[in-house]
Amino acid sequence: MATDPLPLAQALIRCRSVTPADDGAMAVLEAALAPLGFACHRLRFGAIENLFARRGAGGPHLCFAGHTDVVPAGDAGAWTADPFGGEVRDGVLYGRGATDMKGAIAAFVAAVADRLAARPGAPGSLSLLITGDEEGPAVDGTARVLEWMAAHGQVPDMCLVGEPTSRARLGDVIKIGRRGSLNAAITLHGVQGHVAYPQRADNPVHRLLRVLHGLIARPLDQGTEWFEPSSLQVTSVDVGNAATNVIPAAARARLNIRFNDRHTGESLARMLRAALEAEGARFDLDVSVSGEAFLTRPGPFVEALKRAVRRATGGEPALDTGGGTSDARFIARYCPVAELGAVGTTMHKVDECTPVAELRALAALYRAVIEEALG
Amino acid sequence: MATDPLPLAQALIRCRSVTPADDGAMAVLEAALAPLGFACHRLRFGAIENLFARRGAGGPHLCFAGHTDVVPAGDAGAWTADPFGGEVRDGVLYGRGATDMKGAIAAFVAAVADRLAARPGAPGSLSLLITGDEEGPAVDGTARVLEWMAAHGQVPDMCLVGEPTSRARLGDVIKIGRRGSLNAAITLHGVQGHVAYPQRADNPVHRLLRVLHGLIARPLDQGTEWFEPSSLQVTSVDVGNAATNVIPAAARARLNIRFNDRHTGESLARMLRAALEAEGARFDLDVSVSGEAFLTRPGPFVEALKRAVRRATGGEPALDTGGGTSDARFIARYCPVAELGAVGTTMHKVDECTPVAELRALAALYRAVIEEALG
Ligand SMILES: [Zn+2]
Ligand SMILES: [Zn+2]
Repeated sequence: MATDPLPLAQALIRCRSVTPADDGAMAVLEAALAPLGFACHRLRFGAIENLFARRGAGGPHLCFAGHTDVVPAGDAGAWTADPFGGEVRDGVLYGRGATDMKGAIAAFVAAVADRLAARPGAPGSLSLLITGDEEGPAVDGTARVLEWMAAHGQVPDMCLVGEPTSRARLGDVIKIGRRGSLNAAITLHGVQGHVAYPQRADNPVHRLLRVLHGLIARPLDQGTEWFEPSSLQVTSVDVGNAATNVIPAAARARLNIRFNDRHTGESLARMLRAALEAEGARFDLDVSVSGEAFLTRPGPFVEALKRAVRRATGGEPALDTGGGTSDARFIARYCPVAELGAVGTTMHKVDECTPVAELRALAALYRAVIEEALG
Repeated sequence: MATDPLPLAQALIRCRSVTPADDGAMAVLEAALAPLGFACHRLRFGAIENLFARRGAGGPHLCFAGHTDVVPAGDAGAWTADPFGGEVRDGVLYGRGATDMKGAIAAFVAAVADRLAARPGAPGSLSLLITGDEEGPAVDGTARVLEWMAAHGQVPDMCLVGEPTSRARLGDVIKIGRRGSLNAAITLHGVQGHVAYPQRADNPVHRLLRVLHGLIARPLDQGTEWFEPSSLQVTSVDVGNAATNVIPAAARARLNIRFNDRHTGESLARMLRAALEAEGARFDLDVSVSGEAFLTRPGPFVEALKRAVRRATGGEPALDTGGGTSDARFIARYCPVAELGAVGTTMHKVDECTPVAELRALAALYRAVIEEALG
């Protein structure tokens, strides 16, 4: 009979590991992995607990990446269950992290246990890269563990990220890439003056309107085979001029770009700078790239995942690159990486939950992934 | 010898008549006019003191319009003279209202005194329409006095407004019209959402950018024989969205239009509404017209003013319609009106002042105006 992922999922949910807190979550996980023969490396960077655990040393090496940290409960009074209680009600497991992604970690550990029980001498090796800093700044988490892994000869051949990618049905979506994300803050300087004499002033609002209109008027690209078109959203424009008869001295805007692999943070920063320079006014431009775009082009690893989904669920997975950023952007620098996990409908919401049957189905799916990836 | 306008100008400056305060200014003026044979009507509307004073009943009837209220001293510590002291230093009269326009009132009264002394039986009649609410909301001032004048058969045949219209040299500019002024506040409503999923949101910032860019991209008109082109200035755009990953629910903008007589407040409000409706989003539009455009087409009255300037100063006046609004916009509904006064360089500024010689020259100019207008 298959290992039940439920007890471990509940034990993890009961740790109040809201980023950057760990609250014992890594210890719970380590206690589950050590008996399975994993060598556990607790890696603390800054205030963040991380774990790299590997069983076996041979290739191919499949790594499961995930996070034990969760977003806050939000309006705890609006929950119908204790967000950190791990309660099962009518066959549904409730709690922060049920889908994103303590449930997936438990499902993978259950899959590993079954794999080892069924085929103790199977080829390849398995590892887990678990961070406590995915929902936060992600500075002392996955990126630094990967550096440690590279320094210690532990770079995997392929990596599965357990984010809740499924949309309506378990396994219906595999994410093979993510768009990048860039934030920019613009300040445009003009010359203050009276509205009755615009020729003696230089209205920075008009200049900013021209620049921003130019940016939103033409698409950044038409999309690619695997990506939808990049999207630029102006999220705020702020002048704060209360005087109706005064042309202000400066105008500010903030924008976010979600970009595909036709761009890099640097190429977009250059594009923004050029648009501002073309306007010919003095400006400040502050750009921060929170993640570059990445793509794992369909190949042997993605094919293995597709076969696993077909076998475990009977459905055909769609390959997708939509949505926000994830830690997969760091892993993509080292090896093929794709994301496959629970149905994410309730993630980050009140009453985050997963049907227990679906949690068990996810364990079976991960078992199939291990078999298809390692043989 | 000509009557000296200086003592009355000083007496008026010494009244701290910052809008809406009168502080005795009207009484000072009345005390100067009554001995000259003027019938004085003190007209109080709301908190505002106004004065209509007329001498004689026959036509033609020339009215001088002005205001005893002044703007605040501002940074009083930055003045080199008491703003309400009426001090003369090195031949220059200092004080709030020296140019705008207590000096001009005193100059006109001096001109009237000389006219009466020189030609006691001259034709026509003279009046003064003086308000204490020109620098303020202008609700209980000139507009209401004009209503009273109309109701009492006192509508003049022509009106001279004593605003400081001169630019570099006394009499170099006669204002024969003013542009209108309109303020609009726009709120554009969209649908809030996450920047990663713009298709599920409706970014009101982008809609507002399109509307505003459309408004500033094409000129409102090319100007007319007498007016420069109308000007639309976006004075503020405000969203106030601090979250870099959120598309906001609403975006706000404020704009001011200075418009010539090709437009009315109503036609411009219609234009703004149409531009917003064309964008197809839900919006709030709040329009307030602080003054319609007006023009006194050059004719007998303007010709009389030009002759007076030539005779009194030897220079040729330019006819102009630039600058902000003035109370002349109310008078234009009743009779030909034009503005002619001191050099306005220091008006509304620290150390507002006028050379005493220029104040006396203004009195001589007004004397010439009376002679050219009434014969
Ligand atoms: Zn997650
Ligand atoms: Zn004035």
